[in-house]
Amino acid sequence: LAFTQFEACPGIVDLAWGHPPPSALPVDAWAESCTEALRAFGPRALTYGYANGPGPLVEWLCERLGRTDVRAPRPDEVFVTAGASHALELVCALLVRTGDTVLVDSPTYHLALRIIGDHTADLVPVPVDEDGIDPVGTERLIHHLRGEGRRIPLLYLVPTFNNPTGACLPPDRRGALVEVARRTGVTIVEDDTYRELAYDGTAPPSLYGIGDGYAVIRVGSFAKTVAPGLRLGWLNASAELVRRIAARGYIDSGGGVNHTTAATMAVFGSSGRYERHVTVIRALYRAHRDELVSVARREFGHSSCGVPGGGWFLWLRLPPGVDSTLLLPHAEANGVSYVPGARFYRSSGGNGRGYLRLSFSMCEPDLLAEGVRRLAAAVGSAPTGHFPKPGHVGTL
Amino acid sequence: LAFTQFEACPGIVDLAWGHPPPSALPVDAWAESCTEALRAFGPRALTYGYANGPGPLVEWLCERLGRTDVRAPRPDEVFVTAGASHALELVCALLVRTGDTVLVDSPTYHLALRIIGDHTADLVPVPVDEDGIDPVGTERLIHHLRGEGRRIPLLYLVPTFNNPTGACLPPDRRGALVEVARRTGVTIVEDDTYRELAYDGTAPPSLYGIGDGYAVIRVGSFAKTVAPGLRLGWLNASAELVRRIAARGYIDSGGGVNHTTAATMAVFGSSGRYERHVTVIRALYRAHRDELVSVARREFGHSSCGVPGGGWFLWLRLPPGVDSTLLLPHAEANGVSYVPGARFYRSSGGNGRGYLRLSFSMCEPDLLAEGVRRLAAAVGSAPTGHFPKPGHVGTL
Repeated sequence: LAFTQFEACPGIVDLAWGHPPPSALPVDAWAESCTEALRAFGPRALTYGYANGPGPLVEWLCERLGRTDVRAPRPDEVFVTAGASHALELVCALLVRTGDTVLVDSPTYHLALRIIGDHTADLVPVPVDEDGIDPVGTERLIHHLRGEGRRIPLLYLVPTFNNPTGACLPPDRRGALVEVARRTGVTIVEDDTYRELAYDGTAPPSLYGIGDGYAVIRVGSFAKTVAPGLRLGWLNASAELVRRIAARGYIDSGGGVNHTTAATMAVFGSSGRYERHVTVIRALYRAHRDELVSVARREFGHSSCGVPGGGWFLWLRLPPGVDSTLLLPHAEANGVSYVPGARFYRSSGGNGRGYLRLSFSMCEPDLLAEGVRRLAAAVGSAPTGHFPKPGHVGTL
Repeated sequence: LAFTQFEACPGIVDLAWGHPPPSALPVDAWAESCTEALRAFGPRALTYGYANGPGPLVEWLCERLGRTDVRAPRPDEVFVTAGASHALELVCALLVRTGDTVLVDSPTYHLALRIIGDHTADLVPVPVDEDGIDPVGTERLIHHLRGEGRRIPLLYLVPTFNNPTGACLPPDRRGALVEVARRTGVTIVEDDTYRELAYDGTAPPSLYGIGDGYAVIRVGSFAKTVAPGLRLGWLNASAELVRRIAARGYIDSGGGVNHTTAATMAVFGSSGRYERHVTVIRALYRAHRDELVSVARREFGHSSCGVPGGGWFLWLRLPPGVDSTLLLPHAEANGVSYVPGARFYRSSGGNGRGYLRLSFSMCEPDLLAEGVRRLAAAVGSAPTGHFPKPGHVGTL
């Protein structure tokens, strides 16, 4: 019986999964926090928790988010979730009805497309260019779709260290997009999972902060900063929306959705362990990022990728005409794996097939380099079938 | 900022909330299990978990469920959830579409009605008599509703130590109800939360076991046996349905829904702590049950309540004509609280207003007795407005 989601495949350098390396998981510090939390809170850590999350964690989160962003949420604007994916699931369960249109960025987190897709089949990509979402085109699209009678509750994106590109939406577009949300009443869901993993200075201000808490729901996570197995995250939204989430039957029934773990995280945070841990893993992932960018540019050319300013992923452009979907089995036969670019697009039609996502979180630098060398060898030796006609694929 | 769901109200004996007392929460044993699990599993306890739940817990659960019931599920028939409420939410998200008809027992767990109600507004009570659900009438109702074109995915009940009545569905009706589910294709959701808390021998065989894993989804929980704050439970269903749940976008994104806690529970279980703890709290709750039944019968007469064979609740019949909904503010002014019977019915029309639910889990025996005395005093001194016309209320 399996224990974990990812099990290593012998002989494969896995650059596909966005998972932490074992060395980045704070086993001892978390064990100490468990002991301390149970000592400090006693039975209160084990009984039904307050729906919005235990006070000490909400308080610590408000303080922390105020330090890493332009706006500290008020306590009644915080809801502690069982991870960012669970936050998105909760938001969709509350706000999306079957048949609704949900707008999405491209490329964007492929499993977010799946989560939203469990609630409605109608996901529509908004216009993008090389800098990301085009706010003017997005507003035009919203009016057009509404003219067709469609109901549009949400627009989903990862504006900061995007999964899969690592890119950040430029500041002027952030402001413009929040204005579009305000004018049209389409709520932005800002997936802010990677904010703390900024490698070249500070992350840009969140859409949530720019909007002063209006028109934007932000989802955040401890999966990347502490440990994914905890299944702990949060969302920030208006106090009214937080109340509506807390009033959901299953939350009223069970109380806080991950109470004991949340109480432990309060200790992990307030004891200083969080800050120390994030500092350590930020340096670790920065070194991974630097190695991957360097070897990718060496093997595929300087213009094959940008430098992701944060997060876990690098978005690699393959040589003209190489199709990352068709290449994958050949690459795996050559001992390296990745996620093909097309997975990060809602629409088919060749989008992203000239790109692929490499995760630099899990493998040590030596292995990252070996993986990219294998990838380059796979591209160099791919059968001709992997180079479809120009124009058909290879566009962003 | 609040920490827990329930905060005691000074001067009130609270017999409303179904919560454990602090003394029944295994603070030290859980702390030891945390330490041991992190030592035994290391980073594997903290990374993304296997969607269905970590192998050691699934294995232990199969073995344990085989000992407490007529059928041990196979490992691929187990999905570890974030509590029983979360299991019900997952099942509804997968199987219930807006507009569907979901059948429910009466009286039944009031918050299950809320959970289901988040997915469809059409909840229909099935016919019941003093022994519980009437299988013949239920089959007739299903045919009738289908004749009207309604889609009926589920029938929800707590057949074993029902919340709020503490009653068990008789063996012959269990078999008959499973047959109805098989013949009609309406899936039974069996809420089996209280199985381990049996005070007078063994709990009756589950519908899940009687059906040999077909036609029934069982949901279970560690909230009552270990600690509600953990948010850990499970469901048993066909391997195909378990696969469909695991394939949901948000589970594919986050992996096991409460992985670190589940890994810790595997240690809590296999170390023998679970067995020892359940033995201790079973005796504790049995003593609470005995005291509450004894004092309730003393104050309200022998026929005012049955003896719940397990679980946390006693279903008290008030003197003829007393309305438990109208009585509540008066009772609280007299220093005792409870949940009025009408809450456990989907339909209005006076159902359950002659009854109320008393929880015997949280208060020590002395306080249980004091609560019931206050309740009797409240009934004795209630203003005449609390005794509406006969026939209007007071029926089951």
